[in-house]
Amino acid sequence: MPIRKGRYTLEFVNAPVIAGSASVVGKKEGEGPLGGEFDKIYDDTTIGEQTWEKAESAMHRDAVTRALASADVSSSDVDLFFGGDLLNQCVGTAFGIKEMEMPCVGLYGACSTMALGLAFAALAAETGIAQTVVAATSSHFCSAEKQFRMPLEYGNQSPPYAQRTATAAGAAVVKSSGSGVKIQSVIIGIIKDVNVKDSNNMGAAMAPAACQTIIDFLRDTNTKPEDYDMILTGDLGDVGSRLLIELLQRQENTDISSVHADCGLMLYDLNNSDINSGGSGCGCSASIVCSYIMRRLKAGEIKKVFFVGTGALLSAITPLQGDSIP
Amino acid sequence: MPIRKGRYTLEFVNAPVIAGSASVVGKKEGEGPLGGEFDKIYDDTTIGEQTWEKAESAMHRDAVTRALASADVSSSDVDLFFGGDLLNQCVGTAFGIKEMEMPCVGLYGACSTMALGLAFAALAAETGIAQTVVAATSSHFCSAEKQFRMPLEYGNQSPPYAQRTATAAGAAVVKSSGSGVKIQSVIIGIIKDVNVKDSNNMGAAMAPAACQTIIDFLRDTNTKPEDYDMILTGDLGDVGSRLLIELLQRQENTDISSVHADCGLMLYDLNNSDINSGGSGCGCSASIVCSYIMRRLKAGEIKKVFFVGTGALLSAITPLQGDSIP
Repeated sequence: MPIRKGRYTLEFVNAPVIAGSASVVGKKEGEGPLGGEFDKIYDDTTIGEQTWEKAESAMHRDAVTRALASADVSSSDVDLFFGGDLLNQCVGTAFGIKEMEMPCVGLYGACSTMALGLAFAALAAETGIAQTVVAATSSHFCSAEKQFRMPLEYGNQSPPYAQRTATAAGAAVVKSSGSGVKIQSVIIGIIKDVNVKDSNNMGAAMAPAACQTIIDFLRDTNTKPEDYDMILTGDLGDVGSRLLIELLQRQENTDISSVHADCGLMLYDLNNSDINSGGSGCGCSASIVCSYIMRRLKAGEIKKVFFVGTGALLSAITPLQGDSIP
Repeated sequence: MPIRKGRYTLEFVNAPVIAGSASVVGKKEGEGPLGGEFDKIYDDTTIGEQTWEKAESAMHRDAVTRALASADVSSSDVDLFFGGDLLNQCVGTAFGIKEMEMPCVGLYGACSTMALGLAFAALAAETGIAQTVVAATSSHFCSAEKQFRMPLEYGNQSPPYAQRTATAAGAAVVKSSGSGVKIQSVIIGIIKDVNVKDSNNMGAAMAPAACQTIIDFLRDTNTKPEDYDMILTGDLGDVGSRLLIELLQRQENTDISSVHADCGLMLYDLNNSDINSGGSGCGCSASIVCSYIMRRLKAGEIKKVFFVGTGALLSAITPLQGDSIP
């Protein structure tokens, strides 16, 4: 049974483990600095499918299949699956895993879905709800552009503070015991709305919630930024990361700059003119956490990572109706 | 800690309770046979808002506010909130509760969201993850028609086997102990796809999964349909309910007809020509479970309800891309 620390944090006694994980990405993500870390790079991001949505589902399925294999379990061993994505009604996930016959829980956490899925997978494994749990998510640049902005054929342009939705999927298998990377504690955040209304500027919309969650967690656990090898946000991008550092410094007198990393700043070659403020989308932090971060943790290169998922709450129509972006 | 029974079912030892709940509905739902059961009937389903999406969020917020009041807790007492809806990116929920400062988990369960939310609220309360948990969902006929079918102004017609999305929201407060309606066990279903491709015929798409879940649960718990005062599906409507009874009879030799009820058949006056095969949408089963069913359980008129949420996994575009409806 987890122990509640402070207002928001749950600390684990048994500490469930990430027994296996996998990431698959598209061509541009494969060309980025972490290209060598992923389990599969699809040079053709249609993945042989006729639509972008079906391509995203195929990547999702592939990530789950590879994660199961890496943990040496089959889908019939899975007690619970947590997954979701950015597509309307989370169809990237549903159509990706519908044949796998796993008891299935749909999550909606926007770009934070991997963090949310890992959190609930760990909570389920720690509390005896399940022994073997899968958390997975995906995003696809082309399905996201079509749904949230413009069909690619229109040649839409985006401002320099915009982030690029990753073509990527990640999945992890969490078990209640055994060998693997331990999950030690979980915090579920609260929604922050600072009245950002520009749907291209999601880093600015998300940084205040990341700031609040980091402060709440450090206070609840009585730890300092230096106690972590990495405070990994996903995905604030360049604009949001700067804002986060500044907010923590000014409002909370807390400096995380020496340990902070952001998945949105890690996925792409930032000199590429298409990238603007960095990566985003459920697949961005999922693919990095489920490959590069796991490998470094397993190799002992880093020991303690505080992974802070972030997500912007909007649909394609809420900004058009004058709504802010919580 | 819950005890796993069979392959899929978790049985509770402490049995968390639904300490309070509330339902708010629109005009047509208020005119239905359960009109006297709801906490609030909005004759003007804009609820004074300028868009249908904002109206749905306002109803969602109202249901949560009333449920908190009925359980005599404030939002600052809430350890965890589980919610979601049918709107793209679950904005009905996000914009409904964004000011309430509750640690927030977005769910996507299509029309089964109330069942999924109650299941995880109960799991969280049983396992010590949280003491006080809220589960909530909503749907709105006008926002759903606009998003999934046609704007209302087009005067779209639907076939007699279609279901009407309820304008309704429901919320429940689950606590780990105290007085209230006990939640005794939970089963998380698996996805079934029998290749139904008509997005108006969701009852047919959902009945096979309801059938499978009922069979799995009865087998896991070693119980018979007669052990329940009510096996309550939400929401199969007229077509789906008939199919469910027939599937259980033919494939499993199980007769649930004497105890079966369906939220989709309970919400509206079925002689009304607009209703076709009955109600649907997250708000349909949510509003009925959070009012009428709770009242009857508390009054002792019924003692044991097996609530089987159902949801169709599709977006507005998956049927256009030739996909079936899992």
